Amino acid sequence: MPRLPSLDRRSRSPLWKQLVDGTVRLVEKGVLVHGERLPPTRIFAAELGVNRSTVCRAYEELWALGYLESRPGSYSTVRGRARAITATLNGVIDWDRRMAPGALAAFRADAALPRPAAAEPGWIDFATLSADPGLCPVEGLRHAVRRVLLDHGRAILDYGDVAGFGPLRETLARRMAAHGITVSTDEVLLTHGAQHALDLAVRLLAQPGASIVVESPTYGLVLPLQRLHGLRPIAIPMRADGMDLDALEACLARERPALLYTVPTFQNPTGITTTQIHRERLLTLCENRRVPILEDGFEEEMKYFGRSPLPLKSMDRNGIVIYVGTLSKVVFPGLRVGWIAAERECVRRLLALNRFTSLSGNVLSHAAVNEFLHGGHYDAHVRRVHATFRRRMTVMQQSLEKHATGLGLEWTTPNGGCTLWVRMPQVSGAKEQRLLDLAAAERVAITPGSLFFADPPEQLSFRLSISRVKTHEIEAGTRALARAVGRLAGRGARTGLNSRRSLERPNPSA
Amino acid sequence: MPRLPSLDRRSRSPLWKQLVDGTVRLVEKGVLVHGERLPPTRIFAAELGVNRSTVCRAYEELWALGYLESRPGSYSTVRGRARAITATLNGVIDWDRRMAPGALAAFRADAALPRPAAAEPGWIDFATLSADPGLCPVEGLRHAVRRVLLDHGRAILDYGDVAGFGPLRETLARRMAAHGITVSTDEVLLTHGAQHALDLAVRLLAQPGASIVVESPTYGLVLPLQRLHGLRPIAIPMRADGMDLDALEACLARERPALLYTVPTFQNPTGITTTQIHRERLLTLCENRRVPILEDGFEEEMKYFGRSPLPLKSMDRNGIVIYVGTLSKVVFPGLRVGWIAAERECVRRLLALNRFTSLSGNVLSHAAVNEFLHGGHYDAHVRRVHATFRRRMTVMQQSLEKHATGLGLEWTTPNGGCTLWVRMPQVSGAKEQRLLDLAAAERVAITPGSLFFADPPEQLSFRLSISRVKTHEIEAGTRALARAVGRLAGRGARTGLNSRRSLERPNPSA
Repeated sequence: MPRLPSLDRRSRSPLWKQLVDGTVRLVEKGVLVHGERLPPTRIFAAELGVNRSTVCRAYEELWALGYLESRPGSYSTVRGRARAITATLNGVIDWDRRMAPGALAAFRADAALPRPAAAEPGWIDFATLSADPGLCPVEGLRHAVRRVLLDHGRAILDYGDVAGFGPLRETLARRMAAHGITVSTDEVLLTHGAQHALDLAVRLLAQPGASIVVESPTYGLVLPLQRLHGLRPIAIPMRADGMDLDALEACLARERPALLYTVPTFQNPTGITTTQIHRERLLTLCENRRVPILEDGFEEEMKYFGRSPLPLKSMDRNGIVIYVGTLSKVVFPGLRVGWIAAERECVRRLLALNRFTSLSGNVLSHAAVNEFLHGGHYDAHVRRVHATFRRRMTVMQQSLEKHATGLGLEWTTPNGGCTLWVRMPQVSGAKEQRLLDLAAAERVAITPGSLFFADPPEQLSFRLSISRVKTHEIEAGTRALARAVGRLAGRGARTGLNSRRSLERPNPSA
Repeated sequence: MPRLPSLDRRSRSPLWKQLVDGTVRLVEKGVLVHGERLPPTRIFAAELGVNRSTVCRAYEELWALGYLESRPGSYSTVRGRARAITATLNGVIDWDRRMAPGALAAFRADAALPRPAAAEPGWIDFATLSADPGLCPVEGLRHAVRRVLLDHGRAILDYGDVAGFGPLRETLARRMAAHGITVSTDEVLLTHGAQHALDLAVRLLAQPGASIVVESPTYGLVLPLQRLHGLRPIAIPMRADGMDLDALEACLARERPALLYTVPTFQNPTGITTTQIHRERLLTLCENRRVPILEDGFEEEMKYFGRSPLPLKSMDRNGIVIYVGTLSKVVFPGLRVGWIAAERECVRRLLALNRFTSLSGNVLSHAAVNEFLHGGHYDAHVRRVHATFRRRMTVMQQSLEKHATGLGLEWTTPNGGCTLWVRMPQVSGAKEQRLLDLAAAERVAITPGSLFFADPPEQLSFRLSISRVKTHEIEAGTRALARAVGRLAGRGARTGLNSRRSLERPNPSA
C-alpha cells in the first residue's frame, strides 16, 4: 500500500480536507508518483479509522483537482498534474499576425502617431480637451449618488435596460428639445461616452469596402475607427465656414459613402461652427443621396456666447441623422454618459448591437446623473462653466492678437466650445516634432495638427484647448507659445511672413 | 425700407436681443420675406435710435441663426430658414440595406430567436442568470462610494486610464492569484462587463472568413458576436466532462480557427466543470496549434462546494489564454466591472482597440468597487453568497430527483455556479415553444435550450438557473415544471420513457 497522509483529529480542518491536502503534498514531494494505485475507499477508510464517506469525498476532490485518475470499475491512480505557473514563459502567439486586418491597421497607424509630452505640473496645458475638473460639482454628485442609492439601491446595482436607464433617457430627450431636437425616449440610446456611440454607429453602417466622409481636419479618434472598420476615408477640406460643400457635392456625385461624419458646432479641432445655411445645404445633399449623417454634438452645451444655430438633427425630417451627445465636455467624463438620438428603426438595430457587445448600461452612473440633472445642480453648473469659458475664450483671443500677430499664424475665432485651430501656411508639416519640442521647452502643451488628418498635412498646424488652462495662465502661455513659434520660423518670421489672416467667418455687419 | 422690429426700452431683455427676436418673428410671420434687403447697420441704427454696435451684434446673431444672408461688401438680405421639426416625417433610409453584413446577420438571427415570457411577480424564476439583488450589499457600496468621492472626488469624476482604474486592476490581479492566475497589473484591462470583454477579444482576432470554436451548447450571447464578426462557428459537442476533445483534435487537424471560446468552470448553460486532465489536454491541443483560447471565467468565484480545478489561465505557460473575469455574477452587475487578463503584447493591442471604441473606463464605478473589495465587505459577501447557493443547488438537485425522475429528463449536477442543464433526449427540439407555453401556464420561467446552439438542436433542452429563485420556492417550482414536462410528453411519459440518466461525471470513489 502506498504511503497515506496522516490526520490530525484536533485540527479545525475537516478530515476529508486533511486527506486532500496531505495527498497533494505527497504528490508534490514525489512520495506518491504518477500512476501509483490508491487503495479502494473501503480499505483506505479502515486503514485510517475514518468513515468511508470521508474518503469518498476526498477522492472526489482530488479527482476534481486533477491529482487522481479514475475510471468506473477500476482503481484510482495518482496523477502528477501540471501546476499553476508564476509567469508566462514564452509568448508563442504572434498577435499581429492573428489580428483582424482593421484592428491591426488601426493599431499600427495609432502607434505611429506623435505622442507629445503631456502637460506636467507647472506647464500650461493647451492640449487636454475635457470638462475642467476644477469646475467639477463633486458635492452635487455626492448628494445625487447618496439619494439614488438610498431610494433605489438594489435596482440600480442590478443589470439595467440595454438602452440605458429609462428616466435618464427621458431627461436627455427633454434637454435635447432645448436644442431643437424632438425625439421620444425610445429614440435615445445611452452609451459609454460619445466614443462608444461613434463606434456603435460606424459599426452599424460599415459595409465592407465602403467609404466614410469626414471633415479635414476632423476629430482625431474618428480616424482609427475608420481604419478599424476598414472604411476608406474621403476627407473634405474644412473652409472658414465648415466642410467644403461644393467638394462634398462633387464627391457624392461619384461615391456612395456608408456615412458622413460631421461636427457642425465648435468643430474638433477647428472650433468652427457652421451657419444655418450651411447646415441646410449639407442636410439636403445627404438627403438626396440617402447618405446617413453621423452628427457629433459633443459641445452642444458650450454655446456660451449665445450665437447658436440648431443641430442638423433638429431639421432632420427624413430620419437620416444619427446624433451623438455627451456630458463629458461639460461635467463628469469619468461617469461615461454619452448617447445616440436617431430614428426608431435605426435605434432598434443599434440596441441589438449594444446588447451583443455590452449587455447593459452602467445603471448607477445613469441614475446618479439623472438625479443630478433634475436637482437644478446641472443648470447652475452650466452657467458657471459658461461664465468661465467666456472669459477664457475672450482672453485667449486677445492674447493671440497681442503676442502672435506677425508670426505667420492664422487662427480661428470660435463662438464657443473649447478649441482653436492654428495654422502656419508658410511652414511645412514636417516641422511638427520640432514645434512640439520648442513648445515643451517653454513648458506649454499643445496638440499637434497631424492627429486630425487622415494623411500627413502639408502645412504645420496645431490645436489649442482652453478646457484645462486657468484664465490667468492664458496670456503667459500664449506668449511662451509665440516664442516657440518665433524660434521655429527663425527670427525673420516676425517681419517676413504675413500677419494674421484668420479663418473667421465673413463679417455680416459690413 | 422694410418693416423693422419695435423695441421696448423698459424690458430686461437687451436691445440687440430684442432686435433679433423681433426680426425672427417678422420672418416667421412672413412680414419680412426671403431675399428682402436689410438696411446697412448705420442707417438701421439711426432709424431705431440705437447704437450702431447694437445693430451689428443683432445682425451677427441673425446671421448665425440662419435668418440673414451676408457677403462682404454687399447688403445683408433676409433668409427664410428651415425650421426645427417636431417629428421625423419620413424615414428615407432602409437601415437593413445599409447595415454592415455581420451586424445585419446578428440582428436578424437574434430577432428570430424565441423570446420566452420573463418571470413576472408570483412566477418562479429559473430563467434569470445574474447576481441575486436580494443579496446585494447596498450599504457596503454606499459607504465605498461615499469614501471615494470624499477622498478623490475630482480625480474619479475625470477621464481615467483606458486600461481602467489602476488600483482596481491591482486588486483584481491579486484576487486572481487566489485562483492560481499570476498576472501583473499591466496584463489586466478593465472592461464594461464580461460581454464587452468578449467583444474586444473577438474583435481583436476576427480575421475575415475565419472560424471560432465554441462548445455546443455554449453561452448564448457568444453566437451573435460570432455572426457580428463574420466568423464561422465550429460547434464541438459538450460531453459529461466538457468539450469533446477528440472531436476538437480532429477539427484542429484540418482547421485553423481564429480562436477557441470555452467556459471550463460551471459552463453556461450546462453547469459542467471540466477536470484538471481535460484542461491540460485542451491547453496542449491549442498550444500545439497556436490557437488562442478565450477562457470565460464568469463564475470563478462561485465554487461553493469547494471542488475547484484552477482556470486554464493558471497553467498558460505560453501566453495563449485570454482570460475574462467579471463581478456581475457575484455582485453589482449594474456597475459593469469585467476584465481581461492576457499576455502583455495581447493586452497592448486590446488597449488600443478599447481606446478607439470607448476612450476611458468608468472611474467612479471602478474606484467604488475597489474600495468595496478592500473593505472586507466583499469577502463577507462572497461567504454569504456561497452559503445561499450551496443550499439552493442542493435543494434543486433533491427536488429534481423527487419530482422529475421518470419523465425522461437528463440533468447535470454542477459543482457550483448557478445553472443546470436539462435534456429530453426523446423529445424533438421543435417542441420548444410548446414547453415554454406549458411552463408559463405553470408560472415558471426557464431559458429555452435553442438559445445556446448555433443551429437548432434536435433534442429538447432547457437551462435552469438558481440565481434569482428563493430556496423555499425551488421545490414548488420543480414540481410545477415537472407537471409541464409531463403534459408535454403525454401521460405515458411517466412510465414509458427512461428514468433519469444524468450527465454526471464518472464516480471516482468506485
